[in-house]
Amino acid sequence: MLHSALSYTQNLMRQAVRIGDTVIDATVGNGHDTLTLAHCVGDNGQVIGFDIQKSALDTTQKKLIEAKLDHRVTLYHKGHEELNDVLSPSQEVSLVVYNLGYLPHGDKSIVTLPETTIKSIEQALDHLKHCGLLLLMIYYGHEGGREEMEAVTDYVKQLPQNKYSVLNYQFINQKHSPPFMIAIEKR
Amino acid sequence: MLHSALSYTQNLMRQAVRIGDTVIDATVGNGHDTLTLAHCVGDNGQVIGFDIQKSALDTTQKKLIEAKLDHRVTLYHKGHEELNDVLSPSQEVSLVVYNLGYLPHGDKSIVTLPETTIKSIEQALDHLKHCGLLLLMIYYGHEGGREEMEAVTDYVKQLPQNKYSVLNYQFINQKHSPPFMIAIEKR
Repeated sequence: MLHSALSYTQNLMRQAVRIGDTVIDATVGNGHDTLTLAHCVGDNGQVIGFDIQKSALDTTQKKLIEAKLDHRVTLYHKGHEELNDVLSPSQEVSLVVYNLGYLPHGDKSIVTLPETTIKSIEQALDHLKHCGLLLLMIYYGHEGGREEMEAVTDYVKQLPQNKYSVLNYQFINQKHSPPFMIAIEKR
Repeated sequence: MLHSALSYTQNLMRQAVRIGDTVIDATVGNGHDTLTLAHCVGDNGQVIGFDIQKSALDTTQKKLIEAKLDHRVTLYHKGHEELNDVLSPSQEVSLVVYNLGYLPHGDKSIVTLPETTIKSIEQALDHLKHCGLLLLMIYYGHEGGREEMEAVTDYVKQLPQNKYSVLNYQFINQKHSPPFMIAIEKR
């Protein structure tokens, strides 16, 4: 009956994206969200993806070619804090999605970090269109994860309520730091 | 795009209830949820309602008669902590819903209280069937509201995760103690 944080996030993602939209996958990783988004935006839409790990981008690019969706996606071998280098100042997006933590089955020492994550969210919010969504799946069981989780939570809590709605979707009786979702909607 | 806590709770309520079910409105109040539930359970289902305020029950009974749904509902002029006096020990319910706080437009000095609320939740969980939901809409802007909110949150956080999933659905960047939802699903 109750959706996991992951399944709830993916439902919101599908609801938020319309054919023709431009959207951002801020942490491409294994490309799972990138592929979903590429399906959702249609042939006139665009997915912009960021990752600092070249191997992750190569794997994702391969999956996109196999699915015949690579023409809808531009992948950047950059950190998501360089978002403003890629988007023009007035460019609007309907969705930005983050998976915070490390790449599953990858190098666990390479993780997203509080400073660059918040810098990226700040930029992404500027490009988010009215009623657009910024979704954060927050994994924080790893070393440094709790610090990032707390920094991000503190940051989003102080976003002005006349401009943004910030929703926390979290299972609170579980022992092993299960991932949770924060969703920011631009009003 | 994002549902308010109230709208999210009402969606879950409608999803959880099937024709023929027995369900509980632990805080009848103005009867809004009681009527919704009476619609959902059908002619073979049953809604059991509790309220300590006779006037609230009278208003609700009138609304139920007008809607020709009164045969589906039994209202008790009792506190919800007396749940076990009403239900037989083996009786199962698919949904229990609480609105914590005071009755809107009523006497604001009459509020739900931490001790009786937790006593009631404990009893309700025993009667909840597999995959059943216990939903708490928590209003805590009033005097004593924060204490109840904290006591209830502490209580549900320690429910064993092998038996229950406890979800928090809350907007976290708002200034004036907006109501939030806790949902408990029996596994």
